[in-house]
Amino acid sequence: MADLFARCRSWQDYRRALAAGDYTYYLPTAERRGANAVLADGREVVMAGSTDYLGLSADPRVRKAAARAVADHGPGLGGSRLLCGSLSLHEELEARLAAFTGQEAAITTPTGYQAGLALAGLLDAGDTVYADKLDHACLTEAVRVSPATLRRYRHGDTGGLAAALERGSSRDSGGAPVLLTDGLFSMTGDLGDLPGLADLRDRHGARLIVDTSHDIGLIGEHGRGAPEFLRVEDRVDLLVFSFSKSFGGVGGAVAGPADVIDYIRHRSDAVLFSAALPPSATAGALAALDVMAEEPWRRTRALECARMLRDGLRERGIPAQGGPGALLTVPMPDERTCRRYFLDLLDEGVFTSAITPPAIPHGAVLRVCTTAAFTDDHLARILDAFSAVERRRGGGNGGDDGSAVPAAGFATAGRAAT
Amino acid sequence: MADLFARCRSWQDYRRALAAGDYTYYLPTAERRGANAVLADGREVVMAGSTDYLGLSADPRVRKAAARAVADHGPGLGGSRLLCGSLSLHEELEARLAAFTGQEAAITTPTGYQAGLALAGLLDAGDTVYADKLDHACLTEAVRVSPATLRRYRHGDTGGLAAALERGSSRDSGGAPVLLTDGLFSMTGDLGDLPGLADLRDRHGARLIVDTSHDIGLIGEHGRGAPEFLRVEDRVDLLVFSFSKSFGGVGGAVAGPADVIDYIRHRSDAVLFSAALPPSATAGALAALDVMAEEPWRRTRALECARMLRDGLRERGIPAQGGPGALLTVPMPDERTCRRYFLDLLDEGVFTSAITPPAIPHGAVLRVCTTAAFTDDHLARILDAFSAVERRRGGGNGGDDGSAVPAAGFATAGRAAT
Repeated sequence: MADLFARCRSWQDYRRALAAGDYTYYLPTAERRGANAVLADGREVVMAGSTDYLGLSADPRVRKAAARAVADHGPGLGGSRLLCGSLSLHEELEARLAAFTGQEAAITTPTGYQAGLALAGLLDAGDTVYADKLDHACLTEAVRVSPATLRRYRHGDTGGLAAALERGSSRDSGGAPVLLTDGLFSMTGDLGDLPGLADLRDRHGARLIVDTSHDIGLIGEHGRGAPEFLRVEDRVDLLVFSFSKSFGGVGGAVAGPADVIDYIRHRSDAVLFSAALPPSATAGALAALDVMAEEPWRRTRALECARMLRDGLRERGIPAQGGPGALLTVPMPDERTCRRYFLDLLDEGVFTSAITPPAIPHGAVLRVCTTAAFTDDHLARILDAFSAVERRRGGGNGGDDGSAVPAAGFATAGRAAT
Repeated sequence: MADLFARCRSWQDYRRALAAGDYTYYLPTAERRGANAVLADGREVVMAGSTDYLGLSADPRVRKAAARAVADHGPGLGGSRLLCGSLSLHEELEARLAAFTGQEAAITTPTGYQAGLALAGLLDAGDTVYADKLDHACLTEAVRVSPATLRRYRHGDTGGLAAALERGSSRDSGGAPVLLTDGLFSMTGDLGDLPGLADLRDRHGARLIVDTSHDIGLIGEHGRGAPEFLRVEDRVDLLVFSFSKSFGGVGGAVAGPADVIDYIRHRSDAVLFSAALPPSATAGALAALDVMAEEPWRRTRALECARMLRDGLRERGIPAQGGPGALLTVPMPDERTCRRYFLDLLDEGVFTSAITPPAIPHGAVLRVCTTAAFTDDHLARILDAFSAVERRRGGGNGGDDGSAVPAAGFATAGRAAT
């Protein structure tokens, strides 16, 4: 009999990495020092692994608003908004988020993950949801927990999706198709093909739902994210996003037509049966919206840093990839090299992210995020660290010759379709 | 074709309640005033709807620790602990939670809901999970999102579960059975039959997982919750709990054997792919543990308030029910009466909870929670409010004669098994 706990005892992946000295997850850090540095192993290192793109987690206005909300209302509200009521702060934030995204209404959730999960409440048996294989886990979890059918298409493969929709419209059982995609993909940095998906939406009477977590506040003329950047806002039906990226906080929201948001508010387990977004996170997100509006230089700077870093890495023969956001990736030949590369960079004073299983099903990629809080000196330190690691490793990118720099865009090297 | 949004537009439940003037959910409140009061409609009313049982959301030590963590580390950490690292605060809290619960290890999650969801990472195809029909939604959602089979048994029906296990052991496909129960049920206030479940665990080589959200910090000699209260701690395999009840904050944790917690840490989507528990919530929970240890009077007082309230309601002919916790229920004949009763109580200055769909699948019950922050005057105000509402309604409990006061325990009146 396959005992649940025996399974855990016999599982070796984690222990193997630990034993090999190349375990890179849950790294102990003593302190966050602003948006661009972290205290790890007693040393202050440059933080290029966080998604605090605008540097707002360290903004004094955001921190003050969050701390004041703790003083005014307490750290938590002791229950769901369903039963314990909404704070005026929640209602104010939801109205502001609706206005910011150009939607009729919004509902907040205590995490971005639960904003994705909340989609489950919309889905019925008979619905078919088509999701990109690199969509964030919370989106596909929402479909799996619902009675709808989940069909996953190869990352970025709009053509394959089109064919699946053609087949599906004759086969599927009555429900309208739903297209579910990230705006900017968190593990690759490339944009979703929103124009192509919007065309398929129109052709098939589908609904298009976009997770803008990694692009809201950052790209598009007004910072409304990938739908604005790609000029398809009027053909995106529902938005899901997190506050733990550009907002510098925690929590998330779904934004869309008022009756759809009301439905989610009363039908999604992850909304009904979970605690309210805490006062500090609510007030922090409100303050973040103010700063975003007042200081568009932040998104300009975060994006400029990403471009400078990408160009600098490429000049050094390192094939950095990424879309128009503040997230770069460097493909790695294998997991072990990726983890070693991460640890070497950390040794050189830069904290990035080693994306290997279980963060992705297989493959390996090094992720580097930029923030508006980077000075030119931070960028120089990151580039110097990469140079030093490359020298240590004898040049080249762990086996690649480094001269074959692919065009920015889809970063698939080192990763099978997941 | 059943369009997703057409479904939302045609859905009337919420609009009907609004139109009838008896909508009771997401009530607007301007401000929390400590742990025992809330500002609603410009009036300060007694808060008997929150699960802040120990009053810690308003404790100056907890608030100070939470506000200080915002100042030190920011409102959020910009990513998952998997990729962005753990704060020392997280590791300290997890060690303290393990010590408090008497388990080897613990992992924190950004919400209590996600602590339940995290169980999904443990489950494989072939596992069969037996869950009480009144278990919290996050627990059954964890099973539904996993490849395991979910079998639900009638609330509290250990005999029925025993028979299902006998049948299952001949039928199921090799996986060891898992028994999943709330310690103290959130919608009824009664205890799970942990001794009976522990016997079944032993007999069938099953694992017993208990959600102690509504009993931890509150019952048992050292406040470790239902397993300690019922003297079965050595036969409970894994604990799941929330910080938005006794801890007065937000977030949650899973506690158990170290290798099981490590497995969850690396295999559960709700842990891997979600933001870290924010610094404020982490520091708040640590401070809450200190206050719990230093001031056991808090749990004594919350429980005493619940007993006094139950006795006072019964003296008034109101059949209040509930187990040994700080959560009482009053069965209501139907949804409409329940919502009206809630609104009448609010009118009299007391905020309770009207538990009707969608909070439960069907039926109606009024929930009243007590907190250590209640003075005798608060209790008197609550009892006076009930008396006033009973007078308004012409005595009796909406049709019941009020003299048939059932024994404390399972509150099932007005609710079919859900």
